[in-house]
Amino acid sequence: MNIPAPTPSTTGAPDPTFANLHNDRFLRACLRQATDYTPLWLMRQAGRYLPEYCATRSKAGSFMGLATNRDFATEVTLQPLNRYPLDAAILFSDILTVPDAMGLGLTFAAGEGPRFATAVRDEAAVAKLAVPDMAKLQYVFDAVSSIRKALVQDGKARVPLIGFSGSPWTLACYMVEGAGSDDYRQVKTMLYARPDLMHRILSINADAVAAYLNAQIDAGAQAVMVFDSWGGVLADGAFQEFSLAYTARVLAQLKRTGPLGETIPRIVFTKGGGMWLQDMGELDCEVLGLDWTVNLARARALVGGTDRRPGKALQGNIDPNVLFAPPQQIAREVAKVLDSFGKPHQGPGTGPTHIFNLGHGISQYTPPEHVAALVEAVHNHSRAMRC
Amino acid sequence: MNIPAPTPSTTGAPDPTFANLHNDRFLRACLRQATDYTPLWLMRQAGRYLPEYCATRSKAGSFMGLATNRDFATEVTLQPLNRYPLDAAILFSDILTVPDAMGLGLTFAAGEGPRFATAVRDEAAVAKLAVPDMAKLQYVFDAVSSIRKALVQDGKARVPLIGFSGSPWTLACYMVEGAGSDDYRQVKTMLYARPDLMHRILSINADAVAAYLNAQIDAGAQAVMVFDSWGGVLADGAFQEFSLAYTARVLAQLKRTGPLGETIPRIVFTKGGGMWLQDMGELDCEVLGLDWTVNLARARALVGGTDRRPGKALQGNIDPNVLFAPPQQIAREVAKVLDSFGKPHQGPGTGPTHIFNLGHGISQYTPPEHVAALVEAVHNHSRAMRC
Repeated sequence: MNIPAPTPSTTGAPDPTFANLHNDRFLRACLRQATDYTPLWLMRQAGRYLPEYCATRSKAGSFMGLATNRDFATEVTLQPLNRYPLDAAILFSDILTVPDAMGLGLTFAAGEGPRFATAVRDEAAVAKLAVPDMAKLQYVFDAVSSIRKALVQDGKARVPLIGFSGSPWTLACYMVEGAGSDDYRQVKTMLYARPDLMHRILSINADAVAAYLNAQIDAGAQAVMVFDSWGGVLADGAFQEFSLAYTARVLAQLKRTGPLGETIPRIVFTKGGGMWLQDMGELDCEVLGLDWTVNLARARALVGGTDRRPGKALQGNIDPNVLFAPPQQIAREVAKVLDSFGKPHQGPGTGPTHIFNLGHGISQYTPPEHVAALVEAVHNHSRAMRC
Repeated sequence: MNIPAPTPSTTGAPDPTFANLHNDRFLRACLRQATDYTPLWLMRQAGRYLPEYCATRSKAGSFMGLATNRDFATEVTLQPLNRYPLDAAILFSDILTVPDAMGLGLTFAAGEGPRFATAVRDEAAVAKLAVPDMAKLQYVFDAVSSIRKALVQDGKARVPLIGFSGSPWTLACYMVEGAGSDDYRQVKTMLYARPDLMHRILSINADAVAAYLNAQIDAGAQAVMVFDSWGGVLADGAFQEFSLAYTARVLAQLKRTGPLGETIPRIVFTKGGGMWLQDMGELDCEVLGLDWTVNLARARALVGGTDRRPGKALQGNIDPNVLFAPPQQIAREVAKVLDSFGKPHQGPGTGPTHIFNLGHGISQYTPPEHVAALVEAVHNHSRAMRC
């Protein structure tokens, strides 16, 4: 790899963050260090667009059968890496495992989204909520350890592994609605009519998410991401009070280092949160994920810092629907996104960096060969930009 | 009304824009003139949350039966005004009448959204599209004239009447998808794979929308609004190219004055467009509609102008879900929105003004008595702010 040597630590020992990795570009970019090309991974990269994923899922019988089985979860996590030269792996799981462990009974009906057996809609239901025993989520931590082992090739890991959770607000949306929603009527009724109940749910969720991500870090997650998938449905003011504040509460409780003293970068992604970028720039995390509505040049200027001023690494943000166009158009759109961010930091020290990703999860209808075209375009164009 | 006298025109004649109206606050606020309180109306104010609307609809047999019948459309347009002291009426119609007139066959299945018999997905289908004969939309223009007459009380109109259309991009979404969508896969596939076809559809839509709104103005609409309901699903860059440019093309063709020489304010509302406010500030229109994710103080600073500098009047933006909370909480949230905009322009001349509205259409589940509480809170609090 044509990248600068790691900055020596004060003891002279190599930084354990980058040790034992064939490809450490993702972690370096998270920490605003230079890389020879822009690393990329794809939200929901292990998913239904891959025939091999569908085959494993059908062996598992159901989505939760897949997610709760360590070996299946390991298998599908590695599938996209075996097809494409992606720069990170992400734990195969669901954002709703935590409320499931709270006893709300998560299921996935065929062809539909998630559904909880119990919706949390009144004072009595809220009073019953508590941070779940993390032992109920052991299947997730087992999957993390198993995936870490499976990623090793010739004594080193191919790429780092990202752990994740839904944000406190996003979990609350599903817990109160009982399922996905197109108007968020139930959860917003509670928010506006009984903000005290909403704050109680969010406090519990924040503490649960923090414990959950810390246990993933203990099990071997090398970066963690908070998916605030529904933060963008909130009104200005309500976002800061009911989503951002609780994401901050999670971040405040997260471990800064893993078992070997390695730095664990923390990524926050609020879909539809571009309006609140400046607020998000104040979060105690390393990376901000951005959806496709955000102008990367503007985001970099607002929160990306400079070579002299600290800031966030930025992750995103091509429209997943670009993947329905032919490879030539995909390459053109990839170049637009990379050029919009502009030349990332080069040389020693830190500065603005970019991790390429989709602006949201990949569609199940995506032709797998188009993903290959995307990955190639990102690597090629971003190498060329550095010349 | 405790508002300044209209600025005399050069001939000394009174401005016909404000003539023959009991309540001209909405039009004054559109033109950045002072009013004694903040005028308000509600997107979808004639709708299913009103039992009298449901009764008329059931007489009409179907949504299109309602929308295409002049007398029914007049009846439901006036229903919310008979319940609440709203400051404007809006034509009862649908945003998809124009593609219906293009021959795509609009229907509304019970409990579902709109659906077209024909989806426009390939070159042959695009080649067949043309600006429709406005005679096919005569039922809309008849409704406009009929509503204008019905609004007269004691020789003057109670409030002004707003006409409207979907934006070229929003119409294209439905035309290509054939119905509502949650991923906009078909329309975005065309946009990324065949931008030439998308531009062709949008050009036709823009010219059709302009002709449609001009005919509404001729029939008596006193303001017109372009609903870009789906602009916010576009990526940065694509929004400017595929939505904003065609809204601008509509605006460039619109009549500036009505049959009596009255000024016709033009309102543009892009749901999810808060990120592009600065771009929208360049549009040749008088008012920008905002959804609830936008901070009104920031929007005012960006595009609202000052008493010395021109700018847009701003319309919005309370979360419609606030209406599910009890009246006391509604009043609190109303005050937050009004205070966020701050004191509007007072005295002669022009300056920043605010038209209160929801950030999106009212929900069918809204308790009608909560709407009364909202209207009262807006009028009271905004009067008090002016002291």
